Amino acid sequence: MPDIFTPDFSVNRKIRENQKNQKGVVLWFTGLSAAGKTSIANALETLLAKNNNHSYILDGDVIRKGLSSDLSFDKKSREENLRRIRHVAEMFCDAGIITLVTFISPFQSDREKARLLLKSSYVEIYVNTSLEIAEKRDPKGLYKKARNGEIKNFTGIDSPYETPQYSELVLDSSNKSVSECATQVFNYMLQKKYILKVT
Amino acid sequence: MPDIFTPDFSVNRKIRENQKNQKGVVLWFTGLSAAGKTSIANALETLLAKNNNHSYILDGDVIRKGLSSDLSFDKKSREENLRRIRHVAEMFCDAGIITLVTFISPFQSDREKARLLLKSSYVEIYVNTSLEIAEKRDPKGLYKKARNGEIKNFTGIDSPYETPQYSELVLDSSNKSVSECATQVFNYMLQKKYILKVT
Repeated sequence: MPDIFTPDFSVNRKIRENQKNQKGVVLWFTGLSAAGKTSIANALETLLAKNNNHSYILDGDVIRKGLSSDLSFDKKSREENLRRIRHVAEMFCDAGIITLVTFISPFQSDREKARLLLKSSYVEIYVNTSLEIAEKRDPKGLYKKARNGEIKNFTGIDSPYETPQYSELVLDSSNKSVSECATQVFNYMLQKKYILKVT
Repeated sequence: MPDIFTPDFSVNRKIRENQKNQKGVVLWFTGLSAAGKTSIANALETLLAKNNNHSYILDGDVIRKGLSSDLSFDKKSREENLRRIRHVAEMFCDAGIITLVTFISPFQSDREKARLLLKSSYVEIYVNTSLEIAEKRDPKGLYKKARNGEIKNFTGIDSPYETPQYSELVLDSSNKSVSECATQVFNYMLQKKYILKVT
């Protein structure tokens, strides 16, 4: 195997962050399918864009069509999928981008690996909805298929969701609207100085 | 396998490009090891940053340490490595970033796959140096190791480099300096309106 060298580029993370007037960060949304992760991330991106912040969503469905299209949905493949996401998120963060990751990420061990890799750039956001409510929403009909046995290893049905213990933020998406949850994250980012209010 | 849906996000590529006052594009640098790909990309990033453009380098060495740390260097692994890079580059481009990819990418078929995926966002830049000159430079001592048989499948020694036929740009890095090559790319980007001169 050839040796691996890390190049020392002239334009670094600090320069890219200053250019964008923000800090690169990874907002890692975890929660059941249909908890509202993608909807909240989308609403948050709109708030960020209005504030002239630079963001990007690493979405599970998009990644599954591209980068991870070679993987299946068993435990090992899900772990490999998350390993890849972690490294892609690391690069986006290094690019100075506010990186929104919206994956169920049901296992504590996988979330801890993300925290270890990304260090202080990792912000875990637990989108907390009861299974009952998520299953009632079921916008993609996936819970129904999982109950019928058409989908195996579905989180909440025949695969566990390990409740996060150390999240930086918990969003009560059973009782709060998408807009309220997005505003809660936006205010957290202002408070922690990842962004500055410009409008 | 669960169905895959493509979310329709509110903040799209167009909005992100306008925010950055540039077009998202993938500059795909191909050429022998030690041809100057990384040095030219680095110099180009400096020019871009001075012009307040937003860029990011997807570097082979960095990717090999992170996203592709599970892969070896045989033909199949190199193809998988490039498949992943293509999809990561697609996301960076979609984020409105000027994305610099610096990989040997020796096979025409892999480069064509990148062109097919990225379509008009793909700009191939052939960093053209003779094997003789690249081997004389040998900053990492890799050619020496390849000649000694310590490294197998090394491009130019015991693995072929298929000369690009359809590159948008060819840089003569045998006879031109790193700075001259970077300026050539910068001027190309102005001419094709990926960027506007602001300074």
